Amino acid sequence: MAGSELTNIKSPRVKAVRRLTKRAFRDRDRSFIAEGPQAVREALALDGVVTQLFATAEAEVRHADIVAAAAAAGVPSQRASGEVMAELAQTVTPQGLLAVCRFVHVPLDDAVTADARLVAVLAHVRDPGNAGTVLRTADAAGADAVVFTDASVDPYNGKCVRASAGSLFHLPVVTGTPVARAVGRLKERGLRVLAADGAGEHTLDDVDLSGPTAWIFGNEAWGLPEEILELADDVVRVPIYGGAESLNLATAAAVCLYASARSQRAGSRSSVPRLP
Amino acid sequence: MAGSELTNIKSPRVKAVRRLTKRAFRDRDRSFIAEGPQAVREALALDGVVTQLFATAEAEVRHADIVAAAAAAGVPSQRASGEVMAELAQTVTPQGLLAVCRFVHVPLDDAVTADARLVAVLAHVRDPGNAGTVLRTADAAGADAVVFTDASVDPYNGKCVRASAGSLFHLPVVTGTPVARAVGRLKERGLRVLAADGAGEHTLDDVDLSGPTAWIFGNEAWGLPEEILELADDVVRVPIYGGAESLNLATAAAVCLYASARSQRAGSRSSVPRLP
Repeated sequence: MAGSELTNIKSPRVKAVRRLTKRAFRDRDRSFIAEGPQAVREALALDGVVTQLFATAEAEVRHADIVAAAAAAGVPSQRASGEVMAELAQTVTPQGLLAVCRFVHVPLDDAVTADARLVAVLAHVRDPGNAGTVLRTADAAGADAVVFTDASVDPYNGKCVRASAGSLFHLPVVTGTPVARAVGRLKERGLRVLAADGAGEHTLDDVDLSGPTAWIFGNEAWGLPEEILELADDVVRVPIYGGAESLNLATAAAVCLYASARSQRAGSRSSVPRLP
Repeated sequence: MAGSELTNIKSPRVKAVRRLTKRAFRDRDRSFIAEGPQAVREALALDGVVTQLFATAEAEVRHADIVAAAAAAGVPSQRASGEVMAELAQTVTPQGLLAVCRFVHVPLDDAVTADARLVAVLAHVRDPGNAGTVLRTADAAGADAVVFTDASVDPYNGKCVRASAGSLFHLPVVTGTPVARAVGRLKERGLRVLAADGAGEHTLDDVDLSGPTAWIFGNEAWGLPEEILELADDVVRVPIYGGAESLNLATAAAVCLYASARSQRAGSRSSVPRLP
């Protein structure tokens, strides 16, 4: 650990990181903040993503492996006082560890390849916690990519990064793409595009999910606009068997993505192997 | 609308409602607060649950149907100033409508009947938003009951009530039950008790879910303790196909509950009808 402890919350270095809590500055610096040992560990697993590590003296001891991994990767580490960490972190109980990371998103054409079998598209998702949870669930369900359209929340929003629990670093993420462009590309690549919407004509149990599929998830309050429903190959709803009016967005996405993962795996187990 | 507008945030009536944000006072009064038009509407649909309605002048106009339903049910309504509503409501943007409700939970033996086919048990769930989301999802999946054990959050916590989106009023909810008692009762009633845990030996795809099933969901951070895993008939994990370490609790619960709903319905469609 080179240098002394950073204690002045008004220092230019602290301000330069702190401003990354705002989207405009993230976009300018093409950088964002990952907080906590899990996210920092996952970020360090990718080459050239972490540009600075900040740790309290206590966190340096508790997470010596992470500090060592940063050193091995040539990432500059800075010890920070608890007060500075509280200023930099957006969580109420920061765990004393925080990394400044370069943007990790990739172009749409790199994310949606000819092999893609499961893709999640977030259209008009505004709550960063929901968006991060869907990203985490898509990763768990084995999705090949997650596309944040230009009308959705910024994937680098602190709440989204935290809710993704490291998944932002696990699979190709696309951001800022118009939904029509994303749908066009997905169809070109042979994926069936399904819009998840409570107004869907078919339920999840009625559609064949064994082939390559992209799911479009909409706004928390009002779902998907007509023009997006029309772009999709089909509009599908999660069946409601009880008295609830609807499902929470992240919950509905989980049910859809896991239904796809299950069908695709069941299909691939029983089908004849493809020849190269 | 009888009487004048309530404008004094320090009045005893306002304080008597405001204190229901604390569990000790909820338990003493056996009452809780439901906020917003959706929750108030669902509460009014049950006989004798709502004891007082508070509405801003604006909300009286916008939600005249709800105010009329309250009047028809003999529920006293009180017009409240925006300032009083902000004092009473726990949401940042209250929608001008709030009901004081009697506790709606039922005894375990009433909730878990001989006909029960799908039950969710919340053990050590501490985050009220997660608990409310699981309640909403269980309702959507057609569960017969939701059991909050004595180590879980209070179902009448404001955040839980809000996250449940009205589902607290839709299906039998049990609270304060020791987990061993709940599991004993569920087994007596012929349900197979499955603990959802990332350490499960079997995955969701490997178990037969067509019969009556109760799911136990554990703590957000550390899952379920050994003694609960041992009480269950089986420990089941949601398969993780990608790089994510785990799923968010409410997400995992959604995948499990919908897998059950789907299997039970597929089974009942193909099985021979039971004779009475």
